[in-house]
Amino acid sequence: MILTVTLNTALDLTYGVPELVPHASHRVSEMSERPGGKGLNVARVLSALGHRTVVTGFAGGATGAVLRELLAGLSPQEPADPGGGPDAPQAPEPGTAPAPTAPAPVTDALVTVAGNTRRTIAVVDRATGDTTQLNEPGPLVTADEWAALLGRYEELLAGADAVALCGSLPPGIHVGAYAELVRSARTAGVPVLLDTSGEPLRRGIAARPDLIKPNADELAQLTGSREPMRATRDARRRGAHGVIASLGPDGMLAVTPDGIWQAAPPARVPGNPTGAGDSAVAGLLSGLVEGLSWPDRLRRAVALSTATVLSPTAGDFDRAAYEELLPRVGIEEHAPAAR
Amino acid sequence: MILTVTLNTALDLTYGVPELVPHASHRVSEMSERPGGKGLNVARVLSALGHRTVVTGFAGGATGAVLRELLAGLSPQEPADPGGGPDAPQAPEPGTAPAPTAPAPVTDALVTVAGNTRRTIAVVDRATGDTTQLNEPGPLVTADEWAALLGRYEELLAGADAVALCGSLPPGIHVGAYAELVRSARTAGVPVLLDTSGEPLRRGIAARPDLIKPNADELAQLTGSREPMRATRDARRRGAHGVIASLGPDGMLAVTPDGIWQAAPPARVPGNPTGAGDSAVAGLLSGLVEGLSWPDRLRRAVALSTATVLSPTAGDFDRAAYEELLPRVGIEEHAPAAR
Repeated sequence: MILTVTLNTALDLTYGVPELVPHASHRVSEMSERPGGKGLNVARVLSALGHRTVVTGFAGGATGAVLRELLAGLSPQEPADPGGGPDAPQAPEPGTAPAPTAPAPVTDALVTVAGNTRRTIAVVDRATGDTTQLNEPGPLVTADEWAALLGRYEELLAGADAVALCGSLPPGIHVGAYAELVRSARTAGVPVLLDTSGEPLRRGIAARPDLIKPNADELAQLTGSREPMRATRDARRRGAHGVIASLGPDGMLAVTPDGIWQAAPPARVPGNPTGAGDSAVAGLLSGLVEGLSWPDRLRRAVALSTATVLSPTAGDFDRAAYEELLPRVGIEEHAPAAR
Repeated sequence: MILTVTLNTALDLTYGVPELVPHASHRVSEMSERPGGKGLNVARVLSALGHRTVVTGFAGGATGAVLRELLAGLSPQEPADPGGGPDAPQAPEPGTAPAPTAPAPVTDALVTVAGNTRRTIAVVDRATGDTTQLNEPGPLVTADEWAALLGRYEELLAGADAVALCGSLPPGIHVGAYAELVRSARTAGVPVLLDTSGEPLRRGIAARPDLIKPNADELAQLTGSREPMRATRDARRRGAHGVIASLGPDGMLAVTPDGIWQAAPPARVPGNPTGAGDSAVAGLLSGLVEGLSWPDRLRRAVALSTATVLSPTAGDFDRAAYEELLPRVGIEEHAPAAR
């Protein structure tokens, strides 16, 4: 199974309004509610790709209860093993074929906290599709709750084929938290991908994660450079074994111990980029667990991410578009000069 | 006891942000959650004035559960009688003295519905205090749920000294709903105040409520006139026995079977008008139940409403300001020409 960690889970609300006008009153015409936080989004895509996934992190209060109820609704109806036994991924068939498509269970192994899980609100202008985002900070997590998470995480690592550490830190969690989780994964021999930003990313990289997946802003904040190749190589020198830089509509740049590749979608596509990065993480991790080559992992990540932009629902991916895009992602290998 | 009806209750969230910028992402720096919907706000003020209050209307789903938990927290810890026996209001001492100040219980007699109670979100720009409002529409109420509310309402009327019908209608409730509730109250001999807007107000007035409390916009929508005296008299001719028009910072104009009065606060005050109208309703109803004269009811309504604008927390009133303002509200009686 694949483990995803979301320390600051969220109940994601989307509100449709004709147009957001500051200081006016708006009647919300459409709304939706879904379990969120980056690791939960990654798990949803992994499940759709047929990978058993266990999610941990924190959830609490009334919004935590709603989040867990919605999360339970994501899984196919079958008994799940919360411990996450050492089961192999289904039908690992390396190559450019899409991953197996029967949805796999997402198991809730969240740690209950006393505080209230945050809400995030995406206010979408119906005319233009532009989104205004309001994010609550999240619950104050206590030292005991953090200790409970560490215990749960160690147990889950024992059955994990890979782990993704995703998103922002809630109040109360020390800035080196991800570094601690990276070290545990490396000690347990479980490949670990870190997807966060700012100081938690800077600290986490120093603990030598297998992969990071920063976007251009996160890379610039980390390295001071907006030149993709320079910034990506710099990020590797800081400790990450592999750096997969997301270049938005231009695809991805992967600087890894095995080589340097650039992967690009066949064309720029219109749509909502929300969740595209999480789909890319799911593509990279599922490809790693299935033993795909780097070019095939990148094809999958770029196709999933592009199919997420194309989907009418923010954060979901359009499966038909994904399957159509997969063989059309362009891969270019760079000279290994700076490995 | 005083009964308040809130068909579209709400969990009111307030988010503080430095400045709301459309299409940007915002981290909410402060947030609060409280039970809302106009009738619940009225009940909170009545409780603070020492009047036992029973709230009915609809609540459901996860947000309904949070709302009811917060509502339970409003009451002093003592056993309450949900049926609302024919108890007299505490220490009715007519005059300009403030109402009794020991808080009285607010009893939850809400009808549970299958749908999810709505949230409202007030996004407050911390620099300017300007508020952007986002209101969910509310749950779809079924015919059976409406029938259950009617049954509950009839039972509660038997023990009520007065009733306030407050706010918007949730989806599924017919536009003549308030007219139906006004007729039941009149049949039961319980004085009824209607505080709503648009078509539900227009229909409700035709059922001859004792009082309505429109603001200038609601009056203009109802009567086509923005001239307060003309619009208020027109509203009375449509069926309301008494019309208390809220003139915002200028106070109130009361056109009643007993006379016409204008009441004004001693000065304009800065602050947040959210909830000022609900405080005015609480002032009018408590004064009615205590047998106060019209001038004293109006003094109380204007002082409460002004003390609500002055309060740092939206919807609460500043008690010291209220007590200081009460004897300073100016009352002017008009010639009874157009009664």
